[in-house]
Amino acid sequence: MTFLKSLLPILGWAPTYSRTDAQSDLVAAVIVTIMLVPQSLAYAMLAGLPPQVGLYASILPLIAYAVFGTSRALAVGPVAVVSLMTAAAAGQVAAPASAEYLTAAITLAFLSGLVLVAMSVLRLGFLANFLSHPVISGFITASGILIAASQLKHILGIRAEGDTLPQLVTGLVEGIGGFNPYTLVIGIAATAFLFWTRKNLKPLLIARGLRPRLADLIAKAGPVAAILVSILAVVGFGLAERGVKIVGDIPAGLPPFALPSFDLGLWQQLLLPAVLISLVGFVESVSVAQTLAAKRRQRIVPNQELTALGASNIASALSGGYPVTGGFARSVVNFDAGAETPLAGAFTAVGILAATVFLTPLFRFLPQAVLAATIIVAVLSLVDIAAIRRTWAYSKADFAAMAVTILTVLLVGVEAGITAGVLLSLVLFLWRTSRPHMAIVGLVPGTEHFRNVERHKVVTDPSILTIRVDESLYFANARALEDAIYDRIADQPALKHVVLMCPAVNLIDASALESLEAIAHRLSSAGVGFHLSEVKGPVMDALKRSDFLQHFKGRIFLSQYEAFTTLGGPAR
Amino acid sequence: MTFLKSLLPILGWAPTYSRTDAQSDLVAAVIVTIMLVPQSLAYAMLAGLPPQVGLYASILPLIAYAVFGTSRALAVGPVAVVSLMTAAAAGQVAAPASAEYLTAAITLAFLSGLVLVAMSVLRLGFLANFLSHPVISGFITASGILIAASQLKHILGIRAEGDTLPQLVTGLVEGIGGFNPYTLVIGIAATAFLFWTRKNLKPLLIARGLRPRLADLIAKAGPVAAILVSILAVVGFGLAERGVKIVGDIPAGLPPFALPSFDLGLWQQLLLPAVLISLVGFVESVSVAQTLAAKRRQRIVPNQELTALGASNIASALSGGYPVTGGFARSVVNFDAGAETPLAGAFTAVGILAATVFLTPLFRFLPQAVLAATIIVAVLSLVDIAAIRRTWAYSKADFAAMAVTILTVLLVGVEAGITAGVLLSLVLFLWRTSRPHMAIVGLVPGTEHFRNVERHKVVTDPSILTIRVDESLYFANARALEDAIYDRIADQPALKHVVLMCPAVNLIDASALESLEAIAHRLSSAGVGFHLSEVKGPVMDALKRSDFLQHFKGRIFLSQYEAFTTLGGPAR
Repeated sequence: MTFLKSLLPILGWAPTYSRTDAQSDLVAAVIVTIMLVPQSLAYAMLAGLPPQVGLYASILPLIAYAVFGTSRALAVGPVAVVSLMTAAAAGQVAAPASAEYLTAAITLAFLSGLVLVAMSVLRLGFLANFLSHPVISGFITASGILIAASQLKHILGIRAEGDTLPQLVTGLVEGIGGFNPYTLVIGIAATAFLFWTRKNLKPLLIARGLRPRLADLIAKAGPVAAILVSILAVVGFGLAERGVKIVGDIPAGLPPFALPSFDLGLWQQLLLPAVLISLVGFVESVSVAQTLAAKRRQRIVPNQELTALGASNIASALSGGYPVTGGFARSVVNFDAGAETPLAGAFTAVGILAATVFLTPLFRFLPQAVLAATIIVAVLSLVDIAAIRRTWAYSKADFAAMAVTILTVLLVGVEAGITAGVLLSLVLFLWRTSRPHMAIVGLVPGTEHFRNVERHKVVTDPSILTIRVDESLYFANARALEDAIYDRIADQPALKHVVLMCPAVNLIDASALESLEAIAHRLSSAGVGFHLSEVKGPVMDALKRSDFLQHFKGRIFLSQYEAFTTLGGPAR
Repeated sequence: MTFLKSLLPILGWAPTYSRTDAQSDLVAAVIVTIMLVPQSLAYAMLAGLPPQVGLYASILPLIAYAVFGTSRALAVGPVAVVSLMTAAAAGQVAAPASAEYLTAAITLAFLSGLVLVAMSVLRLGFLANFLSHPVISGFITASGILIAASQLKHILGIRAEGDTLPQLVTGLVEGIGGFNPYTLVIGIAATAFLFWTRKNLKPLLIARGLRPRLADLIAKAGPVAAILVSILAVVGFGLAERGVKIVGDIPAGLPPFALPSFDLGLWQQLLLPAVLISLVGFVESVSVAQTLAAKRRQRIVPNQELTALGASNIASALSGGYPVTGGFARSVVNFDAGAETPLAGAFTAVGILAATVFLTPLFRFLPQAVLAATIIVAVLSLVDIAAIRRTWAYSKADFAAMAVTILTVLLVGVEAGITAGVLLSLVLFLWRTSRPHMAIVGLVPGTEHFRNVERHKVVTDPSILTIRVDESLYFANARALEDAIYDRIADQPALKHVVLMCPAVNLIDASALESLEAIAHRLSSAGVGFHLSEVKGPVMDALKRSDFLQHFKGRIFLSQYEAFTTLGGPAR
């Protein structure tokens, strides 16, 4: 039962589900549904897919997450960054708007689901930890810029293609002469209105006496108002006949039962994008879920989240949808609207299903420019310039990884960007550990504590040299250790003992062990004693498994103070 | 002048070169020449090249090293592992024994020279540090097995091709029926004789009253005796007519002036092999040079060695040779024979030049089986089973890297093997650092030193929890840190303070900084104080550059003892 409960978290909350829970969940579901319908259409457009695909991706996946997910408030569905990644991946194997393109998107969702489930089964969730915060932050910022740029053509009412920022800009510059004035007016008005509702409507409503929570929800419904007004304008003034592009016919009805392609060649082409979509989606989703769970002192189980997101993506594929993940904006709305259990997500699914069946004719005259405006306003909030500045100030290495991610996303593409960022951050970490910081230390007066002679006023003894090496000793820095010790013992005729202080040595690998043997040998032939201090338990265990200690003529001291005083240094 | 001296180390020793130095160098050169001539022919055969190419590779490169090298005893030339790598790389782009194959080998030497010089200019010598000892040791052991297996066909006098161990074994099994009895007798006799001289001749000569050094040198001349006797046997008994394969005509004369191919397509194909040959050659050469330099308290300059090896390889290419590096066996002979300066290498070059011009007709009737025997005996001494056992006992991670290197070399090839080994050892290091060891620590009685409560008898205080994290905090382990702290503070109602003891934290990157902020926030809302102790200088400098300290409500203690006593723990 415990196993089943951990596999199906629904069994944890369903038995105690109450009428109050149901009320809260229903209210949240209505609000999220209203927000999700236009967003789903917009993100499907961003992914280069027919609008109804966005709706399909917002139904079954929510049910699947409600069954398997551990977060009480996470709302899954299409999100901006994953939609962009889907467009990039599907665009590499099929022409936009073709049947093969749709098949590629569905197959991507299926593969992504398989990858997530496999990661769960193999407990590979830790792989997401290798996406550092600066890389993720840079990736999302750059994706936001790229997405916003890709939507400008809809605001202008022109045709312009491109996958990278230079291509997009070139396309816009070349095509700008053919802009449609009606589209442009609608696009600019919608964008301005949406920015205004997002920034100013809530304070205004509060000033007018509304309760903050209600004001917030009304402000978040801004897109709905923009959509209704623009549909009325298109119908009333016959703008479609004047060149304003509209969404057009959306087939009404239940999501279809769909099957992904089982063409192995296609799978091979889509596997790497699917892995990247899975990782990015997982990181985004888990971050959101953990933030919300912490507010209510709940916990989410990352490995179970992999299963839940995997199931959601497989459900999306089987109902004609495309890759989904837990979205930030909708989850926060769901949480703020009072969702108590994942059943809120299931209710939302029912709401979107109803919209898919009954409301699609309404959206026929919706201008694409308004959808583009909702996307632009949503993604520009993802652009985090302050994070770039903060990272620059804190660490140049982190900044380098972030900058390379941003530039590669903008100039080459999303997949290349995240790959370059991850590889560079790993290489930089390895590079840093390969040139460890080393300090000569002395006794802080009045204590038994030893610190860097260059930073603190400490007591030393000319016959004892204590070097603290601030890194695990492994193959990449073993030679650096040898060189550093030989350099530091040169020209010290009074030297009788060298102590290697090891509180920061968490590992001594076979290469470093050989270096330690070489150092011991060399110091011994120079008549200088070589000792270790503060060697940690796990490292000591490893040394005992080798024959190092049999040959080692020096001593291994529990504490550096013991080493210092035993070897003749002044006591405190 | 200092700059010139560091670029041309010859300027350091040439001005003080004495008559005694010259005598020592001349004696060493004669001995090394005698050893090198048959070895050069053998390694050229191993590389799939005409025998004279081995001689060409042993002339100009030695002069180049004498000018640029910093080791006084290193002898450069063809070596077994690099010959095997040359065969693998050239075999991928051209048919064996074709003119294109020779061009590929020459181009490989040229490219390898360029790579080495570029590494020197860009100060990339540290890259060699990423080849861990277990990976190098496994690579050399596996290469030795592969080389020995590849030579068995010459001992049997059959044709059998193959690049991997299974292919070689299959080829031998299929072809064994056609073995040549004369060849087999010569091959087995030569192998047995060479093993005997290597193991038993020196002790025997010493027992007969010879001085150890002389005995050693006579024993090392074993191959020369085997070669002379086998040539006499072939000529005397007309064995060449009975199917014993001989070396055949070797063109006498000066090395030709050669140019590498400048076909960019070929360069592209050979670049990765050239990089791997450069790295492996550099590591082998520097290890030998450092070992020998340490014995005479001299120092070698790794970066200058890159220049010297680069110049040697370019010299090899321009004189019709193939990739060279500093060899272990010949350098030790050079050192033992008393070489005082790199001029010994230049004298050796003159000796080999003389052999190339005058002695090549002598080797016409040399059986290939004897060359194969010298190779087998030389490379089997590279196989180090004890190192495998030692590594297994010491560290399973190091062993895994070694085992994967060995298996991949044997089953796939040399280049794949070294690449797999390097990547796996890096991945394993990252994996280890991503799951850091953490310990709850307490005060060792009578000291100010804190150790793991599970390993030592220590004093703790129920209101203070001190966690020592044994790793730099970076993106790959930031979440692990959060989880570990949350897990450890659960169910501790008496807890008032958590101290993170940081002596092993050499780096806090931007991701980990966010985790620390999250931990501080969470503990603060649970009414628990959060403090740091023993934060190192460079880490503290970085924290000061962020706004972490402005929000941080806890204290940062210089020593853990200060933290413990200040927060109310019992003093020593």
